[in-house]
Amino acid sequence: MALVVQKYGGTSVGTVQKIKNVAKRVAKSREAGNDVVVVISAMAGETDRLINMAKQISEMPDDREMDLLLSSGERVSSALLAIALKAGGYPARAFTGRQAGFITNGVHTKARIKKIEAQKIHEALREGEIVVVAGFQGIDELSHDVTTLGRGGSDTTAVALAAALKADVCEIYTDVEGVYTADPRIVPHAKKLDLICFEEMMEMASAGAKVLQVRSVEIGMKYGIPIHVRSTFTEKEGTMVVPFSQEMEAVVVSGVTHDKNQAKITVMGVPDRPGVAKALFMPIADAAINVDMIIQNVSQDGLTDISFTIARTDLPKAIEVAKGVMSALGAKGFTTNADIAKVSIVGVGMRSHPGVASKMFETLANEGINILMISTSEIKVSCIIESKYTELAVRALHDAFVKQGEESEESQ
Amino acid sequence: MALVVQKYGGTSVGTVQKIKNVAKRVAKSREAGNDVVVVISAMAGETDRLINMAKQISEMPDDREMDLLLSSGERVSSALLAIALKAGGYPARAFTGRQAGFITNGVHTKARIKKIEAQKIHEALREGEIVVVAGFQGIDELSHDVTTLGRGGSDTTAVALAAALKADVCEIYTDVEGVYTADPRIVPHAKKLDLICFEEMMEMASAGAKVLQVRSVEIGMKYGIPIHVRSTFTEKEGTMVVPFSQEMEAVVVSGVTHDKNQAKITVMGVPDRPGVAKALFMPIADAAINVDMIIQNVSQDGLTDISFTIARTDLPKAIEVAKGVMSALGAKGFTTNADIAKVSIVGVGMRSHPGVASKMFETLANEGINILMISTSEIKVSCIIESKYTELAVRALHDAFVKQGEESEESQ
Repeated sequence: MALVVQKYGGTSVGTVQKIKNVAKRVAKSREAGNDVVVVISAMAGETDRLINMAKQISEMPDDREMDLLLSSGERVSSALLAIALKAGGYPARAFTGRQAGFITNGVHTKARIKKIEAQKIHEALREGEIVVVAGFQGIDELSHDVTTLGRGGSDTTAVALAAALKADVCEIYTDVEGVYTADPRIVPHAKKLDLICFEEMMEMASAGAKVLQVRSVEIGMKYGIPIHVRSTFTEKEGTMVVPFSQEMEAVVVSGVTHDKNQAKITVMGVPDRPGVAKALFMPIADAAINVDMIIQNVSQDGLTDISFTIARTDLPKAIEVAKGVMSALGAKGFTTNADIAKVSIVGVGMRSHPGVASKMFETLANEGINILMISTSEIKVSCIIESKYTELAVRALHDAFVKQGEESEESQ
Repeated sequence: MALVVQKYGGTSVGTVQKIKNVAKRVAKSREAGNDVVVVISAMAGETDRLINMAKQISEMPDDREMDLLLSSGERVSSALLAIALKAGGYPARAFTGRQAGFITNGVHTKARIKKIEAQKIHEALREGEIVVVAGFQGIDELSHDVTTLGRGGSDTTAVALAAALKADVCEIYTDVEGVYTADPRIVPHAKKLDLICFEEMMEMASAGAKVLQVRSVEIGMKYGIPIHVRSTFTEKEGTMVVPFSQEMEAVVVSGVTHDKNQAKITVMGVPDRPGVAKALFMPIADAAINVDMIIQNVSQDGLTDISFTIARTDLPKAIEVAKGVMSALGAKGFTTNADIAKVSIVGVGMRSHPGVASKMFETLANEGINILMISTSEIKVSCIIESKYTELAVRALHDAFVKQGEESEESQ
């Protein structure tokens, strides 16, 4: 008998009928002899509906109140799933983030889990109940206010809970069949991967693959929880995210990802002296805005330009922060660009295969795509390009690295 | 400077635009120099939408999960109102039932408040914030599960909070201009009452006047909190619910009310011996079903029939309970009737004016309306009639008692 944590995303529970189907799927795992803990997202569209109402009221709604607002979506879906399980004759109990014991820091809309006090879940499991947990939410360790874990936070809820409960596997049920070599809507012949290692999955998730939240992969890696990404709507095996093993390096590039949720801010005429970067990026960090790439140009006449990228959704907040620091920086001003996208290639095989980055630049150049910014890691190369070229770039990169790679990994 | 608790019902916050309007109204009270605590209901239609989803999944959804489900509605509206207040430049903070300190017993869907731990509200008020509280909800003192206070529970939240905070007044904002002598949709010439005493208001509320939840009036009376029932959509003064004073007795009948949410259960062939009533009504009470009227027929051959009325919404649950006790009772069976309604006349003046009940029976008889059950208190007479006669009965009673009463209170 295994302990299985299952997570169902918003499209898996988008209607009452779909919730009933999820209940059947959960029951099946139970009938197979497993202890089952289910983490559930808000019904598809619900989070956007709530955000939309808030935006009609205020351009910049307060983060604390947004968390209270948005956390209601998962409460609804978790209660409905517990009702569906009971209607099918299965003992079940729904837990809010608080009841499930999710204690977080106080960074509203992007809180991080500090600990999980899972006594109530253990109790319920001992009593033979199926545990249903509202994903995406917790409470602030100090104020006890409701916090949320950011978009996709239910993945993190599920994997963190699997780690806390020492579960055998964390199954992430979604509307696709697994992790693909590229977005199948852009590259119709993209392949589903059977296996991928945590490191690759983490780079792919942070590079725009929406199938798992980055933080959830980090936690899975740290605690060695295998993550099975699979479809709610078929019985097929999906993609297993597992620890790295040597033979994975045979594949140079595992996937091509893209991210259109990108924006660039360029601060112009900054005095080129120590402490400037800190004066700019500390307040950005304090506003809980993640900076992705940073480029500083060569100094001319003691002045320089600094460009950096952030999530497009953070742009209004970042503009507020930038306005506030301009005079302290002694900068001439700043420009923003929200018409950009990031395309990336990811693969642990890059470590042992040089020349991957230059081949990527060549591939984009051949398509007439200008590269605005570059960032690399051991197993990833990302380029910022104009947003309109995204699909063209993804297809070209998939053809150059993945499709060709099927015949021979060593041909480059 | 006064401390004012304001409560806004579902129709007052039914759209984003209406929430913005409520924010303006709250701000106005603040600008007038008051400390303001706002209790808010779910957006109109939201609670029904949630119930409807649950009913699509299960005919008898579990009460615990229903509470978790339904409590989400007030969380949404309270967060949105706090966002609207902040957008208008007013410091504000939204509180869930738990954060506001509402500790209840464990009777899901009909919980009673045990205490209010209002430290966080006091803190927020001291910091100059407008406090927004999600109505209708609390947490179970033992399990810490989410509980709700029953339909209209936000009234109780508001008045109980006004009592705990020692507020100067509790203003209940709704979609009508106050308490009327009868439902104006049935009796177009019904009048708004300027004053009504707690006792009358309590009888009217329990007799079907939907303007205030009974429990909230009880609490207002117990703690001497004046309740001002008024419209969200006009500036007019509404109805003040205040302690009884002698001159109120000059009016015999203050109002005529009706309640179509009624059902009758008749248990037939019950052995007429001590302990039978207990064996029937204890399990009903344990299921948290309120019994209104009870009638026991004259015994024949040692057997009797017992009829009782309950809220129609409790009928499915009551049927389950009745099925369970039939054999223990040695009863022959039971019948149910959901096509009934209750019409009532209420007035503290009845104490000093005999003959009111018989005039009521005569009025109904003159219209050809058969009376199925009768119940009286010092200041109220209620009759159960066939549901289809409700409007006819209300108009006849209003003409007989209230309309005529305007010219001369003593004419009967």
